[in-house]
Amino acid sequence: MARSSYRLPKIPEMTIRRLSVYTRCLLQLEEDGVKTISSQDLAERFNLNSAQVRKDLAYFGQFGVRGIGYYVSGLKAELQKILGLDREWSVALVGFGNLGSALFHYKGFGRQGFKIVAIFDEDPSKAGAVDGTPILSTRDLAREVRARGIQIAILAVPPEAAQPVTDLLVGAGIRAVLNFAPARLRVPREVRLKNVDLSIELETLSFYLARSGR
Amino acid sequence: MARSSYRLPKIPEMTIRRLSVYTRCLLQLEEDGVKTISSQDLAERFNLNSAQVRKDLAYFGQFGVRGIGYYVSGLKAELQKILGLDREWSVALVGFGNLGSALFHYKGFGRQGFKIVAIFDEDPSKAGAVDGTPILSTRDLAREVRARGIQIAILAVPPEAAQPVTDLLVGAGIRAVLNFAPARLRVPREVRLKNVDLSIELETLSFYLARSGR
Repeated sequence: MARSSYRLPKIPEMTIRRLSVYTRCLLQLEEDGVKTISSQDLAERFNLNSAQVRKDLAYFGQFGVRGIGYYVSGLKAELQKILGLDREWSVALVGFGNLGSALFHYKGFGRQGFKIVAIFDEDPSKAGAVDGTPILSTRDLAREVRARGIQIAILAVPPEAAQPVTDLLVGAGIRAVLNFAPARLRVPREVRLKNVDLSIELETLSFYLARSGR
Repeated sequence: MARSSYRLPKIPEMTIRRLSVYTRCLLQLEEDGVKTISSQDLAERFNLNSAQVRKDLAYFGQFGVRGIGYYVSGLKAELQKILGLDREWSVALVGFGNLGSALFHYKGFGRQGFKIVAIFDEDPSKAGAVDGTPILSTRDLAREVRARGIQIAILAVPPEAAQPVTDLLVGAGIRAVLNFAPARLRVPREVRLKNVDLSIELETLSFYLARSGR
């Protein structure tokens, strides 16, 4: 059904983000026992734009079947493969305060492809385990990241700790960092950095409210 | 120095997000006592792209002065005005579990333009106050949102509660919703909805890691 090519250049990041959303919609449909769905029904059911869905998928191949639509399980598996979710990534969570704790319990992180295999915090009184995941000292970060083959780190540390921790992670061979600390980080070219700044989300909302002039 | 026009059509959302970043950089420079800065120095210091900075700002006017660069405080004030941060928005935080608590304490939300004036949780045992902000029952949501003139809501509730809570908020006249619950919400056209799905951030990282093929 699906012929995909993963070497096409220049996929817009918004397309990648939407593939992630589509995958979640397809997981839901699969749980609900739906076998096939048209792009219109998919769009309607999950409040998506059907033309956008078709355009996004077209970057990766021809997934729809005329008169049938999409095979739910097949398309889900293809998208998981494209997103690198057909394997398990070992993740370190660094910082176990309010935000770290919320992220650890966040539904969805564990659902597809990611396993938090170690938590690090500089406060030794937090050492121990939560739901079977060890809480280790930040002092052992480099050694443990190497020993556990950790590829991705989630940073939930105070802003002043973010760059030193990142340097340790990079030295230990981390490949990607998801940064929640309100700090601009420097990483080498080969390390993928993604900043999540929660204030930005609120500020884009206020931009539109201010313009709407009510 | 700056002549701005806020009625220009079709500003890319990524530009708005970057204005928010620039504003934060300028606040930092102002704290450090810097009066003027060139776009190159601004870019270098905060790990930005100077051509991108100039292009983003050009949507709103001519802010640079030849031979000087940008006046830090003046540009900051202009950007705050553009982003609607020159006033204070009253915000409700709905859901006070791990994530809600992390969001309440998140630095940056309170720094510019936003004030969480009430927290709502359906668990009556949480009623009270945190750092002077009242924690109220979700049952009183509609009444309190109206009474307190709340314009923006941050949703940190379980996915199954997200749509019913949104319907209550919309009924009470909320203008914008920042949704952290992993649920696709429906809102009327005039309400601005922004979904923050933290799994998407991890999944875009794994997409690039999977493609880099190491």
